[in-house]
Amino acid sequence: MELISTADIDAAAPRVAELAVRTPLLPCPWAEGELWLKPENLQPVGAFKVRGAANALALLPEEARRAGVVTHSSGNHGQALAYAARAHGVGCVVVCPENAPEVKVAAMRSFDAEVVPVPPAERARRAAEIAAERGMASVPPFDHRDVIAGQGTVGAEIVADLPDVDTVLVPVGGGGLAAGVATAVKARRPGAAVIGVEPELAADAAESLAKGRLVAWPTEQTQRTIADGVRVGPSALTFAHLRERLDGIVTVGEEEIAAAMGVLARAARVVAEPSGALTTAAYLAGRTPGGRTVAVVSGGNAAPDLLARAIAGEV
Amino acid sequence: MELISTADIDAAAPRVAELAVRTPLLPCPWAEGELWLKPENLQPVGAFKVRGAANALALLPEEARRAGVVTHSSGNHGQALAYAARAHGVGCVVVCPENAPEVKVAAMRSFDAEVVPVPPAERARRAAEIAAERGMASVPPFDHRDVIAGQGTVGAEIVADLPDVDTVLVPVGGGGLAAGVATAVKARRPGAAVIGVEPELAADAAESLAKGRLVAWPTEQTQRTIADGVRVGPSALTFAHLRERLDGIVTVGEEEIAAAMGVLARAARVVAEPSGALTTAAYLAGRTPGGRTVAVVSGGNAAPDLLARAIAGEV
Repeated sequence: MELISTADIDAAAPRVAELAVRTPLLPCPWAEGELWLKPENLQPVGAFKVRGAANALALLPEEARRAGVVTHSSGNHGQALAYAARAHGVGCVVVCPENAPEVKVAAMRSFDAEVVPVPPAERARRAAEIAAERGMASVPPFDHRDVIAGQGTVGAEIVADLPDVDTVLVPVGGGGLAAGVATAVKARRPGAAVIGVEPELAADAAESLAKGRLVAWPTEQTQRTIADGVRVGPSALTFAHLRERLDGIVTVGEEEIAAAMGVLARAARVVAEPSGALTTAAYLAGRTPGGRTVAVVSGGNAAPDLLARAIAGEV
Repeated sequence: MELISTADIDAAAPRVAELAVRTPLLPCPWAEGELWLKPENLQPVGAFKVRGAANALALLPEEARRAGVVTHSSGNHGQALAYAARAHGVGCVVVCPENAPEVKVAAMRSFDAEVVPVPPAERARRAAEIAAERGMASVPPFDHRDVIAGQGTVGAEIVADLPDVDTVLVPVGGGGLAAGVATAVKARRPGAAVIGVEPELAADAAESLAKGRLVAWPTEQTQRTIADGVRVGPSALTFAHLRERLDGIVTVGEEEIAAAMGVLARAARVVAEPSGALTTAAYLAGRTPGGRTVAVVSGGNAAPDLLARAIAGEV
């Protein structure tokens, strides 16, 4: 299987720049050691996903793009694709697990997407059906080279802003962000460690890496974590990147995730959703290699009641 | 009275860059019209104040800087000066109103500052005494040309990132930020409107502009607003800038401020303290000129309980 290259990521950068914010690194004087945040929660849709969606949509042939796009997503990729499609003036359908957070579904609709709720396990199949029925191009949330290359711009920016970075922490769900970031960082700074972070309750990528083969966890099992953005597991494509380029995966517990959400809001003034707080949780737990560390805060679309309780320390 | 110039702000930029984050503009697809945020809450001390402190400290003669610095502050400037002083390896004393938020006082101490609590009305006098007694340079929170020039880099960055900006909204307390931003923006884009925002409960600058002379409000009166960062009024120096360069001041109510804190956290994933939410509150209330608008989110050091209630919509 051919992996994406840093050239793919370099080529994606100007396409990504048309729709995404160039996020800065935020130093964290409140933390022990040397920590910076990469606040992708500040993207216009509240997550890094706008990068991959922007790149994939820009790379569609003009005629295909005009027919509109379809995807399946627990929320952030759906928002991102809807945002990018609206910017290009084309239609967008998002097949969405019926238990996705209301805040994310409402945002997809606010960008004019047609939302189709289905049981979580059926979402990939239903998206494929709609693509066939309506002649729409499918832009999956992570199992796509152009999407991975777009997400990789996060890693390229990290090394550009902090050339002597030692450790980069990145959440792992479908693995598109981790695959792209590991590709960019390891090519530019081979000595840096790129470490994935998963919830203990959805540690399918960690188990897969340990066994050297893709191990899928049942949907019912991964649904238990509050980190709804990483309940899915890697695809063959993203796993191939993780095996080759990721230095390891660590896991965090549910209470650690919620506590990290509170710390990020109170000390870093950054709103993170649970998936976005995974990397900070791992850092605060002392489970990461150390040195000059960047934690990618992947998204900020938190349910308001959970966010309020996390800030008050009540979770 | 000689006002600062854009040359002062340009000269400040590299000194500011040593300690401050280059904050991006954040587009707000969730808002009506065209709104961007300038998120100064993301600075390492949680507020724009690090810019002025960095510039003033860098401009002190080496010998004076070694003796340490003293200031009076309700919190954010104190944190900023402590942060800058620690970076330069010199001592810092902060005279602080005894009702300042605990979160801000704790942060000052975390940067090794010596904190001296006093009744609010006595803080300027006590800071001057300490400067005289200990031979320390005084770096006031706003009544200082180098501080104003440092804050002005916010305005220079706004125009650099959005050259066709129509309206810039900036909170007004002591007036240092508004003076600096108005200087930078009006010089680069004379057609843009720079509008100050104050709480109705601390609208001393608005009254002063209306009357054409500096009108001080009693401390007991301005203490009523939750926007603790803007309870002070302009000095003769900052007021001279505001008269000459600001296009107007609008005011917002306490409920509007708290509601804007909630919107910023939920929709923009940005933690703002009450003073930092003033500009968004004015925009959402429709009280600003319109067009392509940038709202400066000046700081994010919110008391956790207030922040949690604002997010939950309980304020």
